Amino acid sequence: MKNPKIPKPTIKRLAIYYRCLENKESAGIKKTSSKDLAESLGIKASQIRKDLSYFGEFGKRGVGYDIPKLMKSIKNILGLHRRWNVAIIGVGNLGSAIANYTGLEQNGFFIKAAFDKDKKKIGTQIAAGVLVYDIKELKKVCSEKNIEIAILSVPGKTAQKVADQLVETGIKGILNFTPIALQLPENIAVENVDFTVSLKALTYEIVSQYKEIYEVVEENNNNTEEQ
Amino acid sequence: MKNPKIPKPTIKRLAIYYRCLENKESAGIKKTSSKDLAESLGIKASQIRKDLSYFGEFGKRGVGYDIPKLMKSIKNILGLHRRWNVAIIGVGNLGSAIANYTGLEQNGFFIKAAFDKDKKKIGTQIAAGVLVYDIKELKKVCSEKNIEIAILSVPGKTAQKVADQLVETGIKGILNFTPIALQLPENIAVENVDFTVSLKALTYEIVSQYKEIYEVVEENNNNTEEQ
Repeated sequence: MKNPKIPKPTIKRLAIYYRCLENKESAGIKKTSSKDLAESLGIKASQIRKDLSYFGEFGKRGVGYDIPKLMKSIKNILGLHRRWNVAIIGVGNLGSAIANYTGLEQNGFFIKAAFDKDKKKIGTQIAAGVLVYDIKELKKVCSEKNIEIAILSVPGKTAQKVADQLVETGIKGILNFTPIALQLPENIAVENVDFTVSLKALTYEIVSQYKEIYEVVEENNNNTEEQ
Repeated sequence: MKNPKIPKPTIKRLAIYYRCLENKESAGIKKTSSKDLAESLGIKASQIRKDLSYFGEFGKRGVGYDIPKLMKSIKNILGLHRRWNVAIIGVGNLGSAIANYTGLEQNGFFIKAAFDKDKKKIGTQIAAGVLVYDIKELKKVCSEKNIEIAILSVPGKTAQKVADQLVETGIKGILNFTPIALQLPENIAVENVDFTVSLKALTYEIVSQYKEIYEVVEENNNNTEEQ
């Protein structure tokens, strides 16, 4: 990332704000404020103002934000002002679920191809208009279809090998659903989606809510003193 | 969350550190350092030290971390020192993918039941030992099986309704795969998994890498001045 000052959580929150604004807009609402967004999302208003301040001054003090304008700005920031051609690599349950995920196209993500090595899957459609190609044709098909983003949903053990092949296709970014930390050239963007991480954040919230956490921390401090 | 000082990104990174430590441990490595972790993960060493400092003093200066000890501490912090009984609500492609996701049990997450309203799915197994029950039996089965966590993978339009039913079962947390911002009582933990948010973070990285971002920000600033 060329601008190292912008924290990744800010970027993710921008995407969350955008979805919230979409909902408000489709309900016919034209104006919002950091306070209003805060209430809808359970994020502090000060956090929302801080996040948006990285990218310039949106809205006017005391007047709030014009929803269509703010949406347009966030769209531009996140690169959602244009179309992205996407390929799914690995057609298991997860790949199929993603291919059929509603809301991709409305956000500018168009799945143009899927790839698998399973001969039974090659030639079938996993979603309307999404054909499964032989993984051997990866470079050729990605080039023809001008694929810029790959969604990687292969088994972990083949993830790095397939990622290396993806790099050769000239792809720009990988959404990585495998549990492998991919080794990639610096110019390839990568986002890891690991829902066990979310599960662990969830159990943290549960145990901290039930105060078990304090015993744990105390115990840990005691151990340190003994060392 | 009872301790508001710990930022959510820290918690998620703890889960990421844990996975990295697991990999090192299974490769027979016994010691690590914030620098070593930083290199494996592409996260700054100072960030790692800061994250771990929330929970006490792990490791010794200049000596680094003892991997099994650090793993045990993170496990306790994240609530992974115990078993969690999990149910999957909504048996589409996504629900099936999750039920078959390897690595759940090794992290202490045991899928004990799945639920759907589709009569064709009820009574089948979506993974070894995971039976699909009628959603009408949600309260009864969750209580019998002592389910504490629900993975919600139903269509968005029924998400809130099902979430309300889940609250009544006495569940403690929901991993929400639907695009809906659920309204839940304060004592129910929730984590939202929305991979379009990750896709948007990815496109942000791509466009900022290709410098398109600077034009966008400049344009936005100009607009503001005109107002």
